[in-house]
Amino acid sequence: MLTSQKIIDFLQMTASGTPLPGGGSVSALSAALGAGLTEMVANLTVGKPGYETVEIEMKKIAETVKNLREKLVAEVDNDSNAYNEVLAAFKLPKATEKEKEHRTEAIQEAMKNAARVPKGVANDALQVMDLAERVIKSGNRNAVSDGAVGVMMARTAVLGALYNVKINLASVKDQAFVEEMMREVNKMESRVHEREKEILSHVKV
Amino acid sequence: MLTSQKIIDFLQMTASGTPLPGGGSVSALSAALGAGLTEMVANLTVGKPGYETVEIEMKKIAETVKNLREKLVAEVDNDSNAYNEVLAAFKLPKATEKEKEHRTEAIQEAMKNAARVPKGVANDALQVMDLAERVIKSGNRNAVSDGAVGVMMARTAVLGALYNVKINLASVKDQAFVEEMMREVNKMESRVHEREKEILSHVKV
Repeated sequence: MLTSQKIIDFLQMTASGTPLPGGGSVSALSAALGAGLTEMVANLTVGKPGYETVEIEMKKIAETVKNLREKLVAEVDNDSNAYNEVLAAFKLPKATEKEKEHRTEAIQEAMKNAARVPKGVANDALQVMDLAERVIKSGNRNAVSDGAVGVMMARTAVLGALYNVKINLASVKDQAFVEEMMREVNKMESRVHEREKEILSHVKV
Repeated sequence: MLTSQKIIDFLQMTASGTPLPGGGSVSALSAALGAGLTEMVANLTVGKPGYETVEIEMKKIAETVKNLREKLVAEVDNDSNAYNEVLAAFKLPKATEKEKEHRTEAIQEAMKNAARVPKGVANDALQVMDLAERVIKSGNRNAVSDGAVGVMMARTAVLGALYNVKINLASVKDQAFVEEMMREVNKMESRVHEREKEILSHVKV
């Protein structure tokens, strides 16, 4: 698992002249870091004097965002694996007509999956932004800037993941699939800039 | 060292209900990841047909951004250490007048340092953005979205680090120091949004 690597080694692997791990996995990691910061702010709020009225809300947020974080950790690998599956499909034999047909289908399936995985990351990262908003608005004031960094990490994750969706969609021939995905991509993309601005407007530093 | 931790453990430490590692260290890590992606795009360009004219430039970028990455890896710890020094200063004895005076001075010194460290991160992250721009414009087209994610990781690092500068400056009493730092903060802050937009406009996905 990529996330079982030491940070310093993951950075080294990213920097090296091989495409993996690349922007897709880093986007998922960015979302996981945003989730971690959101969880921290919620945890730093629970049990603190002055925050009694939001205690139940913060406990719920901590739990929800922990689940998202664990899901996003898996996505760091899923994104790289999806890319590897595309490469593997390209390497399938293509000597006979039947092999060619099978190979083309396998490539198309792998490409669709390589678009689905980052779309899931973008979706989860948007949820992290919503949760970060709540800890910024009602959580421990002393940790508000941690929440702000969390929002921005999640924002970059959304946009980074959507770049990867679009790149992979460019190779998908199933137009109905592409159109449906692009509708969702455009919706998320137009929403994320505004959402970040809105959420950060509550951060007074 | 924080960056000797496994990613999954670093995420767990971030999420837990202690302030460290927090938004400052995550910002430095975000910049290091941005540097890593920029380096990857440069490395994926060197030796590739069609990119002969930019080979020397890409080799130089890879080297420069590698140095930045290594510096930023150290900043992940430096940021947390700077916060710990502030806490340590607050715990100094304050029974006598002399002790009180020494404690106040130590707190002020630690606060100044806790503002200087993230300012350095913001500065390095801005440099990462400049280098990412060059790999996006002239590097391997197949990796352009990795460069885009790199820019956004660095952008979040700049803004996240600047939040931390401002928070720590709020406790610094040396007005000349505060004003000088705020001038630089405002300059970087106003520049980063525009720079990101400008750089990403070259990414056609």
